Amino acid sequence: MSLEQELLVWLRENLPTSGRHSVGLGDDAAVLAGFGQTDVVVTTDMLTEGVDFLLEQVDPQQVGHKSLGVNLSDLAAMAAEPVAAFVSLVLPRQGSGQLTPLKLAIELYRGMIPLAEKLGVEIAGGDTNTWDGPLAISITAIGQTTSRGPLTRSRGQVGDQLLVTGHVGGSILGRHLLVEPRVREALLLQERYQLNAGIDVSDGLGLDVSRLAEASLVGAMLELGAIPVSDAAHQLGQRDGLSAVDHALGDGEDFELVLAVSEQEARRILSEQPLQVPVTRIGTLIETRGLWQTSDQGQRKPLVACGYEHRGDR
Amino acid sequence: MSLEQELLVWLRENLPTSGRHSVGLGDDAAVLAGFGQTDVVVTTDMLTEGVDFLLEQVDPQQVGHKSLGVNLSDLAAMAAEPVAAFVSLVLPRQGSGQLTPLKLAIELYRGMIPLAEKLGVEIAGGDTNTWDGPLAISITAIGQTTSRGPLTRSRGQVGDQLLVTGHVGGSILGRHLLVEPRVREALLLQERYQLNAGIDVSDGLGLDVSRLAEASLVGAMLELGAIPVSDAAHQLGQRDGLSAVDHALGDGEDFELVLAVSEQEARRILSEQPLQVPVTRIGTLIETRGLWQTSDQGQRKPLVACGYEHRGDR
Repeated sequence: MSLEQELLVWLRENLPTSGRHSVGLGDDAAVLAGFGQTDVVVTTDMLTEGVDFLLEQVDPQQVGHKSLGVNLSDLAAMAAEPVAAFVSLVLPRQGSGQLTPLKLAIELYRGMIPLAEKLGVEIAGGDTNTWDGPLAISITAIGQTTSRGPLTRSRGQVGDQLLVTGHVGGSILGRHLLVEPRVREALLLQERYQLNAGIDVSDGLGLDVSRLAEASLVGAMLELGAIPVSDAAHQLGQRDGLSAVDHALGDGEDFELVLAVSEQEARRILSEQPLQVPVTRIGTLIETRGLWQTSDQGQRKPLVACGYEHRGDR
Repeated sequence: MSLEQELLVWLRENLPTSGRHSVGLGDDAAVLAGFGQTDVVVTTDMLTEGVDFLLEQVDPQQVGHKSLGVNLSDLAAMAAEPVAAFVSLVLPRQGSGQLTPLKLAIELYRGMIPLAEKLGVEIAGGDTNTWDGPLAISITAIGQTTSRGPLTRSRGQVGDQLLVTGHVGGSILGRHLLVEPRVREALLLQERYQLNAGIDVSDGLGLDVSRLAEASLVGAMLELGAIPVSDAAHQLGQRDGLSAVDHALGDGEDFELVLAVSEQEARRILSEQPLQVPVTRIGTLIETRGLWQTSDQGQRKPLVACGYEHRGDR
């Protein structure tokens, strides 16, 4: 178990709970009730230098963009409308390269602002610190549920079809920095269709599908041949000898959405293709717990859910 | 100007704004409207090793308590009811002393839980990371406004009396770790009296009073002889030769409340003394901008607002 999982076990046993918090620890975001017509959805994610990015190798604007993007992707996974983001920075006292700490902070914000504007998120507060340590960026994003309520990981049903947006794998070649959180896509799908469960692909398609299945108390069968593999996964596979599908299953940081919907809704979504990116059927929720694969010949075999046990914790 | 202030200038010019965010950047917390009956109040504060605490010298439980406490103090300053807190940790990979990263995280949470329980705050999510760097704890606290709306820094009026809860100064002798955020006190005062403006004393009484005055577009006159100086400030003064009042004005991290109320409300509060800690009149909001002091002889002199320009940034 990763540190984060071990801590989660401890927290589940030791944290007091109230009636306000309707979605459990461990989903993509927390849902807080009792404010009025809509519930408040909150997610927080921290990116750290040396773990999530190497400051000498990337444009700080991209780091800023990604820091906000991963949080908004968590709101998308809940089908929540983003409202505001809060940005806490701890900056190396000596800055970075030619950048003073102030200039570094401004570059980070310059990376966030276009994404915030595009998705109607207000950067409404934060905290800025300097220290004798590396750069860390902690963002909390606040959203609100639509009238359909939050989309969670835990309401998938046996027989549900698994759909994924866009293409997956190989994000390390660049797409992981250019996160395009599927906020509008999630809201559109949630408005027009009956979605049972959802998650964003942050740690690897295999791992994130298995998390959705586990939270829904079912199993998942992936049809490996059906997975929409990105060009980057093919490129990466040619370099390192792994198959493109292995990359698609394990790479993580795709920030696409995986959805579980009934067969009927799946048919509608797949034929209507309502998004600007393709929606593809990749598998089924099944009664037998665990993660399974089926080949083109229809054989069922266990599939190891490789991927990052936690993006922030790898 | 401190880095945080310089960044705030840049942010005020460059951040897009929406109609949802009704209290500006730079107050103790942000107020988000549009959820329903009550507004959502959000604050975020990060504590960092080597700046806010020395991990070898303090009990990690106290660090956890303080990390949550400073955030709840910001909610108190807005007279908001706390609802939930989100905790992002980045832990040194090697842990601290005898503690593994997991044990360190658990100790931090053990310090937060009693305070969260006491004040009805649910720890509803977070993010846990490890890295080759020092410990940082970023907490975002979510609250809601009461029917009286939020208390802000900016609605003080000329002629308002300045009141402070408890005693101030010398928190470095230990009280700064044992933050008792004045959440219940703020809610009780907000319910029973008409409060015009408020702030919590995080960076020093002088500095925080001057911030309240500045945000309200007025000046502030402090009666130095009236300030309720803590025993710790006296002790510290005996050691270092500064006066106890200097400590009371400049030390910071008292986490008491400063309130601006009309003369009539001040009389009521002062005679009724509705809190378990004393409420003391320490000055007046005046037309002449800036921070002023008046001695027992009634002479008005400028007062330098010493204190930490920002707690997290010193």
